[in-house]
This record gives sequence, C-alpha cells and structure tokens, in this order.
Amino acid sequence: MKAYAQPIKKLISELGKLPGIGEKTAARLANYILRSTEDDVIKLAESIVEVKKKIRLCRVCLNLTEEDTCYICSDASRDKETICVVEDPDALAAIEESGGYRGTYHVLHGALAPLDGIGPDNLRLGELVRRIDEGQVKEIIVATNTNVQGESTALLLTRMFKEKNIKLTRIAMGMP
Amino acid sequence: MKAYAQPIKKLISELGKLPGIGEKTAARLANYILRSTEDDVIKLAESIVEVKKKIRLCRVCLNLTEEDTCYICSDASRDKETICVVEDPDALAAIEESGGYRGTYHVLHGALAPLDGIGPDNLRLGELVRRIDEGQVKEIIVATNTNVQGESTALLLTRMFKEKNIKLTRIAMGMP
Repeated sequence: MKAYAQPIKKLISELGKLPGIGEKTAARLANYILRSTEDDVIKLAESIVEVKKKIRLCRVCLNLTEEDTCYICSDASRDKETICVVEDPDALAAIEESGGYRGTYHVLHGALAPLDGIGPDNLRLGELVRRIDEGQVKEIIVATNTNVQGESTALLLTRMFKEKNIKLTRIAMGMP
Repeated sequence: MKAYAQPIKKLISELGKLPGIGEKTAARLANYILRSTEDDVIKLAESIVEVKKKIRLCRVCLNLTEEDTCYICSDASRDKETICVVEDPDALAAIEESGGYRGTYHVLHGALAPLDGIGPDNLRLGELVRRIDEGQVKEIIVATNTNVQGESTALLLTRMFKEKNIKLTRIAMGMP
C-alpha cells in the first residue's frame, strides 16, 4: 500500500474487505471520507453500527426486522396459509415491491451450493419445517433463483414436502 | 427504495452518498455489513471516524498527516530546496512509492477547473507562495496531472513564479 498515514491505511484495509471493493476503490472512498464534513462521517459510521445493533431476524420468517416479528408476519391481513420461500431478504423485498403478493415469506438465507460447501444444513430449513408442522400452511410458493443453486434448492424443497398435504408451486418466470 | 427496515434504508442512503456507489451497490454493501460479525462492523465504523478525527494537513506542505508536520517535511535528510507540487495526497503517495525523489512536496488540493467553479483561490497556493518567499527554495517541480486541468494549473504556476529566482520544471512523462 502507498505511503499513507496509519489511520488512512487502516481505513483502506477495512473498506477493502467489503465485497467488490479493491484497494483502489477503497483509497478513493477513504479520500472522499477525509474530505467530507465530520458530521457526515459520523452519520455514516453510526448508521453502520446501528444497522448491526438494531436489525435481527424475524422469529417467524427470518426476514430482517427491528422487532421480534417482522411487519409482514405481524400483519393480520396477510394470508398465513401461503408461504413464499426466498433465498434472501433482497428477494423478499423485490417481491414485496411488486405489491401483488399477500401471503407470508420464509427466508432460507442461502441456496444449495455444494461446491461452496453450502448444503441443506446451512439453509434455514428447520424453521420452515416447524411452521409447516404447525398445520396452518396450505401452499408453498418456491421463489428461489432460476440458477443451478436456486433450482437445486427448489428440488430439495419439493422432496422434503411431497409427503405433506401441501400445494407446492414454483414461482412463474418471465412476462405474465 | 425497496421494503427494507428503517435502519437498513438509512445505511443504504448513507453508503449511496459515497462516490461511485449507487443504490444497488449500497444495498449489496449493507447486506454484507448485516452478515458480518459485530466486531468487524465496529472496526469499520471506528476506522471511518478515526481517520476523520486524527488526520489533518501538514503545516508545511498540506499533505495528510497525524502530526503537526508530515513525516516528509520533518525528515532532515530530505532536500528542502526542492518542492514537488502535486494536485492531491494520492499523487504524492504515488511519487513517494516510486522512491526516486528526495525533495519535499506541496499539495494544492485540486487543479484549475473553471467549468466546475475551481479557480486559483480554491487551490492552496498561498502556502506555496509563503514557502518560496522564505527564500530557501531553489527548484519547483510541477507534477500536476497531464489533463487540461493539470496543464492549466502548471501554466498558472509558471506565470506566478517566473519573476522569482527559481528553477521551474515540469515532471517528465512516459518511459525514461
């Protein structure tokens, strides 16, 4: 690394740990932070710590939330008999944004990827099985991605729940 | 913005203020921060605040430093008769890294860019004039960039100091 002062070197190395940010981008960001007002910098640092301290996983669906239960699971008007299974909170947010779905979700926090060492035990499947065993769920919509990992995960879910009396569908792809 | 919890929205908006980081990249970084350990997150936040609190400009050359005077200006073995003028601390660091220069520096913190409203008054020229008026300086090496802004700045420096008894050179470009 170039001849920077120690705190700058440290910041560049910390920023460089973020995904998709190499040393050059990290140096550019560090320079920007140096030129920002102290107010802006403290706001940025606080929002980083705050998000980590305040956000946890919903007790029911494992979505990100500030409360014990997320705003979807605690909404009485949502259809609790339908669960849409997604890989991550980002996918959930995308479906929510479309505004067409009134059921609940289950976030797996990953997809099967044996080459990366991610097997069924690394996905949050236990919580889903428990919800289904409670007996209220009538339909599962599998909305994992359409890549190999997502499709394998969909297959795994089909195998897991084919014995149970539940309608299992794959989310529609492409234009309606 | 998507249906994220409030602290996540806030973090995405703060990260999105950084240069070259749009909402999508900001969301990806926010997700990474959420998945990191609390320790790593606190380290990142602390290094952001620390850099802002500890780093100031060298009293002599305006390089970034933790001390009153930067490590180059306080190094007795450096040639104080030669000043290399650069646009920013990044350029200084790049020249230092090459290891071939034993003089001192002056950081302008910018280059002339009339279209962006950056005129001579926005550059740190006063400090340079003062150093030269002190009489010790014999040579100025202008190492501003080779783009229009850098060349205009080099021209401005030439005009400013042609009356003084100083050797003024432009840094060599390309292969030696």
